[in-house]
Amino acid sequence: MSDFQLLVVAGTHGNEINAPWLMDKWAVHPELLNTNGLRVAGVIGNPQALKVSSRYIDRDLNRSFCSVLLDDPSAQDHEVLRARELLDLYGPKGLNPCQIAIDLHSTTSCMGSSIVVYGRRPADLALVALIQARLGIPIYLHEGDETQQGFLVESWPCGFVIEIGPVPQGLLQANIVEKSRLVLEASFDEISKIKSGIARFPKQLIVYRHLGSLDFPRDVKGHVQACLHPEIQGKDWQPITQGTPLFLKPDGEIIPFDGNNFPVPVFINEAAYVEKQIAMSLTEKETIAIESEYKRDLKELVR
Amino acid sequence: MSDFQLLVVAGTHGNEINAPWLMDKWAVHPELLNTNGLRVAGVIGNPQALKVSSRYIDRDLNRSFCSVLLDDPSAQDHEVLRARELLDLYGPKGLNPCQIAIDLHSTTSCMGSSIVVYGRRPADLALVALIQARLGIPIYLHEGDETQQGFLVESWPCGFVIEIGPVPQGLLQANIVEKSRLVLEASFDEISKIKSGIARFPKQLIVYRHLGSLDFPRDVKGHVQACLHPEIQGKDWQPITQGTPLFLKPDGEIIPFDGNNFPVPVFINEAAYVEKQIAMSLTEKETIAIESEYKRDLKELVR
Repeated sequence: MSDFQLLVVAGTHGNEINAPWLMDKWAVHPELLNTNGLRVAGVIGNPQALKVSSRYIDRDLNRSFCSVLLDDPSAQDHEVLRARELLDLYGPKGLNPCQIAIDLHSTTSCMGSSIVVYGRRPADLALVALIQARLGIPIYLHEGDETQQGFLVESWPCGFVIEIGPVPQGLLQANIVEKSRLVLEASFDEISKIKSGIARFPKQLIVYRHLGSLDFPRDVKGHVQACLHPEIQGKDWQPITQGTPLFLKPDGEIIPFDGNNFPVPVFINEAAYVEKQIAMSLTEKETIAIESEYKRDLKELVR
Repeated sequence: MSDFQLLVVAGTHGNEINAPWLMDKWAVHPELLNTNGLRVAGVIGNPQALKVSSRYIDRDLNRSFCSVLLDDPSAQDHEVLRARELLDLYGPKGLNPCQIAIDLHSTTSCMGSSIVVYGRRPADLALVALIQARLGIPIYLHEGDETQQGFLVESWPCGFVIEIGPVPQGLLQANIVEKSRLVLEASFDEISKIKSGIARFPKQLIVYRHLGSLDFPRDVKGHVQACLHPEIQGKDWQPITQGTPLFLKPDGEIIPFDGNNFPVPVFINEAAYVEKQIAMSLTEKETIAIESEYKRDLKELVR
């Protein structure tokens, strides 16, 4: 029998409650999600934070999977302990090992249904190419940002985030649950096709490559000095250009984009990112060819 | 000189950040809000909670203004201490006494711009009638609910809540700031007209009287068993009737409204109310005549 197992994590952030609710109901109604015979381990990422509907207790769990924290015995934050526990239980060398991890998130930004991958791991790219070919959803390629490190899925040989929005934090919304369910079920189906040798990989995938992030204008004390301009609110995935209004000051002054080219903003006004000093991230569209070794790497994991 | 002073409270809930931002910017840009010469004391309701972008520290400040808590020396929750402090500072008998209180809130529900009053105090009704006649906004009359008591404005001789939505918790949005500003400035203008004797009261006002609240369907452990039905999400202020879909279970089962008449739902899927076991509140439209003694009571306060 195959020892392949897929890990599905919901509630990595405790105030993103739609995916945990889906997982909870799935446990009672197995017909909710067709796994096509895949072995799937479902787990709540941060149950303590979910209980109090807070993003985290001590620190962001989805920035805690970095070796500098995991390997430091003096690091004892709640989320660092939980990261170690998840790896001990479901990590590639854990008690109940999983080879691929899917991490379910929601956002206050108008991202629609989207996927996030971290860096250019061949198996990740091959897998999300399959899902994009099926559903047509955009992929945000997060890479090269030293201020944002330690994402959960990076601790598994292959994995990605499913990101659905917009939905307020702490709010259950049927359409968000359903969108999460659809992308998850499509992912199950594509992985099961890899396993049975019938997956049809596209020649390429389109990603939105992370360029960097823009902070809100702030005063000397660090207080936010301007709102997002109403014209850009909700315009995730739509290119901006020099002169596009970005921020609106209380006195009516507009702060426009003053960069070059046509970057594509994502995570516009995500509530959780204000503390990370991110008003939006900018990306650039890029096409990546799916090389045969990408598929090979993925197939070696899904056996 | 008149000793009339108006209290404006923002950030009574620490994760409703748009009004506090407006007050903060107003302090630097006085032209943002025209007070028409009124003396206005602006205060952040719960600065500690605002700092951590949480609704409250120990308990809901806007349910802490009840004598059973305020008068009990053993009640030492952060918000009870703060309620006493606000009354000592700005209460009708405080150091810096205010006669009317306006409390600024936001909601994840699609309430638009609206006003909430608690009970049928004549001065409240006369004042919000003026604002409704000017702006046409709906008024939610909260009364007769023993499970929800201790609202801030009830500790002042006259006062109301300005409630703007939808906006996620913890998120700054220019349109929400602007809507808050507009209703607040209209309120300043109407109060200044009372003071100068030129207010023109309408003969009546229309309120949506609180009938009660509906909770989510829950299992024996108290877990939410169904989402709001997508068809009712966002339909605040729109009457429902027998058979209107209210909730959607994971297995597709629809739970319809099975009551009578045509109640009008408000605060549909407000994130903060899940813990209060409120999926929505139901109201009934009612017309209230503005009697001459209502106006007299109000004028006696605004001298």
